Amino acid sequence: MKVLILMGSDSDLPVMKKAADVLTKFGVPYKMTVASAHRTPERVTSLIKEAEAAGCGVFIAAAGMAAHLAGAVAAQTTKPVIGVPLNASLNGLDALLATAQMPPGVPVATVAVDGAANAAQLAVQILAVADAGLAKKLVAHKKEMADAVLKKAAALGA
Amino acid sequence: MKVLILMGSDSDLPVMKKAADVLTKFGVPYKMTVASAHRTPERVTSLIKEAEAAGCGVFIAAAGMAAHLAGAVAAQTTKPVIGVPLNASLNGLDALLATAQMPPGVPVATVAVDGAANAAQLAVQILAVADAGLAKKLVAHKKEMADAVLKKAAALGA
Amino acid sequence: MKVLILMGSDSDLPVMKKAADVLTKFGVPYKMTVASAHRTPERVTSLIKEAEAAGCGVFIAAAGMAAHLAGAVAAQTTKPVIGVPLNASLNGLDALLATAQMPPGVPVATVAVDGAANAAQLAVQILAVADAGLAKKLVAHKKEMADAVLKKAAALGA
Amino acid sequence: MKVLILMGSDSDLPVMKKAADVLTKFGVPYKMTVASAHRTPERVTSLIKEAEAAGCGVFIAAAGMAAHLAGAVAAQTTKPVIGVPLNASLNGLDALLATAQMPPGVPVATVAVDGAANAAQLAVQILAVADAGLAKKLVAHKKEMADAVLKKAAALGA
Amino acid sequence: MKVLILMGSDSDLPVMKKAADVLTKFGVPYKMTVASAHRTPERVTSLIKEAEAAGCGVFIAAAGMAAHLAGAVAAQTTKPVIGVPLNASLNGLDALLATAQMPPGVPVATVAVDGAANAAQLAVQILAVADAGLAKKLVAHKKEMADAVLKKAAALGA
Amino acid sequence: MKVLILMGSDSDLPVMKKAADVLTKFGVPYKMTVASAHRTPERVTSLIKEAEAAGCGVFIAAAGMAAHLAGAVAAQTTKPVIGVPLNASLNGLDALLATAQMPPGVPVATVAVDGAANAAQLAVQILAVADAGLAKKLVAHKKEMADAVLKKAAALGA
Amino acid sequence: MKVLILMGSDSDLPVMKKAADVLTKFGVPYKMTVASAHRTPERVTSLIKEAEAAGCGVFIAAAGMAAHLAGAVAAQTTKPVIGVPLNASLNGLDALLATAQMPPGVPVATVAVDGAANAAQLAVQILAVADAGLAKKLVAHKKEMADAVLKKAAALGA
Amino acid sequence: MKVLILMGSDSDLPVMKKAADVLTKFGVPYKMTVASAHRTPERVTSLIKEAEAAGCGVFIAAAGMAAHLAGAVAAQTTKPVIGVPLNASLNGLDALLATAQMPPGVPVATVAVDGAANAAQLAVQILAVADAGLAKKLVAHKKEMADAVLKKAAALGA
Repeated sequence: MKVLILMGSDSDLPVMKKAADVLTKFGVPYKMTVASAHRTPERVTSLIKEAEAAGCGVFIAAAGMAAHLAGAVAAQTTKPVIGVPLNASLNGLDALLATAQMPPGVPVATVAVDGAANAAQLAVQILAVADAGLAKKLVAHKKEMADAVLKKAAALGA
Repeated sequence: MKVLILMGSDSDLPVMKKAADVLTKFGVPYKMTVASAHRTPERVTSLIKEAEAAGCGVFIAAAGMAAHLAGAVAAQTTKPVIGVPLNASLNGLDALLATAQMPPGVPVATVAVDGAANAAQLAVQILAVADAGLAKKLVAHKKEMADAVLKKAAALGA
Repeated sequence: MKVLILMGSDSDLPVMKKAADVLTKFGVPYKMTVASAHRTPERVTSLIKEAEAAGCGVFIAAAGMAAHLAGAVAAQTTKPVIGVPLNASLNGLDALLATAQMPPGVPVATVAVDGAANAAQLAVQILAVADAGLAKKLVAHKKEMADAVLKKAAALGA
Repeated sequence: MKVLILMGSDSDLPVMKKAADVLTKFGVPYKMTVASAHRTPERVTSLIKEAEAAGCGVFIAAAGMAAHLAGAVAAQTTKPVIGVPLNASLNGLDALLATAQMPPGVPVATVAVDGAANAAQLAVQILAVADAGLAKKLVAHKKEMADAVLKKAAALGA
Repeated sequence: MKVLILMGSDSDLPVMKKAADVLTKFGVPYKMTVASAHRTPERVTSLIKEAEAAGCGVFIAAAGMAAHLAGAVAAQTTKPVIGVPLNASLNGLDALLATAQMPPGVPVATVAVDGAANAAQLAVQILAVADAGLAKKLVAHKKEMADAVLKKAAALGA
Repeated sequence: MKVLILMGSDSDLPVMKKAADVLTKFGVPYKMTVASAHRTPERVTSLIKEAEAAGCGVFIAAAGMAAHLAGAVAAQTTKPVIGVPLNASLNGLDALLATAQMPPGVPVATVAVDGAANAAQLAVQILAVADAGLAKKLVAHKKEMADAVLKKAAALGA
Repeated sequence: MKVLILMGSDSDLPVMKKAADVLTKFGVPYKMTVASAHRTPERVTSLIKEAEAAGCGVFIAAAGMAAHLAGAVAAQTTKPVIGVPLNASLNGLDALLATAQMPPGVPVATVAVDGAANAAQLAVQILAVADAGLAKKLVAHKKEMADAVLKKAAALGA
Repeated sequence: MKVLILMGSDSDLPVMKKAADVLTKFGVPYKMTVASAHRTPERVTSLIKEAEAAGCGVFIAAAGMAAHLAGAVAAQTTKPVIGVPLNASLNGLDALLATAQMPPGVPVATVAVDGAANAAQLAVQILAVADAGLAKKLVAHKKEMADAVLKKAAALGA
């Protein structure tokens, strides 16, 4: 396992499935599960320990409202932690602020509200720093994205 | 000790001293210390354990920015937890949302931004539910507050 | 009666029923009724008086928009008052600020927007400070919540 | 007395003095005093009763944070109530929402954050509906304002 | 005509009809029409002139987005102007700020977002300052509102 | 005169002077004066008329709070109108929304809060659409800006 | 081609079609296509070059979220650039700020959230500075708009 | 060079110096320079190319207002890009949204407003995924942070 995806509730699955899809596409082994910073703080701790022992290089944590999960993970590891603020109330502004505004010494790499796919891609980019094969796939993916835009432009007849 | 006051950083002391002053005024024994949900998560856990063993009835937790401290305390106790959002950025709006918007099952009793005195008074009100002496002091204090308003009105000559 | 739940309008009932459900689950006697700080200020006053006479230990007040109900209750009692900001406009941000930003001397223990269940649980936590039976139930409830997360995680196959 | 100006705290006086100045300029008798919706709810009630008995036609209420004073006055009179949200935190956004977002049946005529002078002028406009002398002064005042703009423009040499 | 209701667009009619209903209920003669500060500024000016000539005592102006209509009316009359911010975008926050945050000398009496009924009631309250019959109706209406709350409370069985 | 700069108050001059400086630098004749949409609506109208007669091609209007000036100008001309929201309260968010959120048919070209220099540069860009000399100066200016960045980078030794 | 309309994604087409409709109505030749500042930065550059070579006088760029497209265009041209913030999240507030708050030297003429029609009309107004025929059409269009308001008012019977 | 730090203006240096200090402390070679997405887009492109050729593994980009720099870098590399929103207006909320709310396919790892030190630490964490020496230093640093909290707690006598 290279990436551990944690989400605060199983109701977050429809959004977070997109993160899993991206990791699958890039061939990055991951584990995705439910763990709550508030309801199961000890489970969060043991999942992090296990993941690190299993060679996990990046954590993704998704939560809504007073979104503490990513910060709670960051408190217990020195691996990069990516936070996905979820829109569960206030258009996700509460979760965005609760994820991004971390104090010095405990950074969380925050993506957009409901930005699950980008969280996974960022995880791939981080792992690719030391994995030339992944790095190549990212370059190819960037070209695919550009091509998709061109195709859409062509479909507009312009 | 009846109340444990935790703050995320010693720079929060000038604001949180007001909470201590209120508890002192009401004769409620307390302990006030620094503990960070992100930098010393284990210390938070052990402080809660010790406080509960020492008969602590209410927790007050103050933090700014992505203010997770109160939520982290609430995750580990069934005692009432009062959260004080501190104005460290964005006028304290980030801390207010990160403190108040807790998910079902893990409430934090949130007071106003920088509302340290009110946090302490709320702690006294909670303890007074089963302490007739404290309850009496609260009634007297309420009267004092009203009298202070009258005195100010008189000073305005109206 | 140990808890009095007030709401500004009967249209708030679908949200506030969750507070009643939590109190019922914990076996805490309560009364729930409609009273408006703006349309029936005297009714609010008399309900508080009656409730206190009947041994009420905690008040829960829910309102939307310029949510003054919790503050109006707090102005007239020294018991703990829990405020539930309701989402009636502006995603509930107006009600959250109108409930939480109370001035010194008159605290309201504010929970999340539409956080009725948490308001009731906080009331139980407050009453449990002096009720060992309730305190035990809270510990059991916390374990149930954690178990529910584990079950959901297992259902995800992870 | 035609206008009663209430403010939540004597620290609001520097801002609210501008309301008094405007009323003085227009020759409208007023009383200005301190009364808190939260600390002295009964005083608010008795001040309203007295003012109405004394012929008061308009109320001005100024408060910051969870600014309930104007709403509390509106709950107890059928006279027009003007609310002045004060900037005591969050740039006054909390007070603005807590003053303006009143529920159906209990309007508060809200002016800008710290808009004390406008509150008084609005009170004069309301009283002028049935006072031809005041109405004339308002027309003259409007012309003065326009002239002041012209003078400033001239000073800019344009 | 005692009240002139202006709205920026005929799409505002479903909301503003509530203002007309309140005025009808109180027996206050009014005129309601469409006029845009931006598309028909001259029409706004002539409508104000006509209304004042016809004895209009209060203006109500409703608009969404960069809601300038109430301010544009206030610029051209010394009668009280009530502004209704409409929710056409950003939950109505843009319209609320554009209506309430008027500069010194040109007040707009702002009500809640989409607060058409309250705008009309405020107009009645203003007219009632010099109309004992209306004042009586307002007192009766306040009692009705309180009774309605009591009836709802009774329906809840509490 | 090619550009007319209007500001709501002479207190806006320190910010708006930057607009004048940019126009001077590009050699674009302009007039800058004070005119309030709310205090001198007729002056706004006559200034627009005069400016158009004098060959004015672009209007710049700056105001704070419920910033209606740019919209009021746009209501009375078909020339491009540039709006500068000024920070007079709420960090300028009120003025930004009141300037940008214009309804269909009456656009205002809005720049950043206190963005006076950019407003002037945008005016130059608009006039340059049909003025090859100005267009050339803009290209040179863009290069100057880039060079200034390079110089700063060099000063950092990087 | 006089106007180039760029949008970040083909999902923006339903909103941006209104811009095309306005340009068609005024007989202004335009090109509309998809180009992403983030996925196809080079395409943006080459489209700008081509458009300028083809005589394009104004650019319109529409994007949601962290809306950089208009700024990216403004970085590479000295022609006027009009930005349309799209509501893709947070009610469009993110896109509005990301479009309007440009630094000195690189202005973007920002219109309302989803204000596609106004963007096109502003483009026409800019082109009309040097095109008397277009200028005439704008005057006629302004009259049409006013007439439409009058017709709506008549339909309301007022 | 392992990290390239870009900032939009040399006025950002006092904040961004903290990023450099952290990298120095961890012994990570870096380059820090000024480059503007809007004023020098080509320089941004060439700096990225050079940095990648020189073995740069992570980019840090800091900007205020409509903060496009991090997004512009992310558009041109597949390496991880860390964005630092700077408080230049609106308390940094504009920069936070413009940095974090990136569209699918182009993530920016966003840290807190003015969170320069955390950006650098996140860069170290990313590089440490494949650098056991750095990873060890991070563990030591985490312990230092915890010790610092304990020392502060001791200084408070608690």
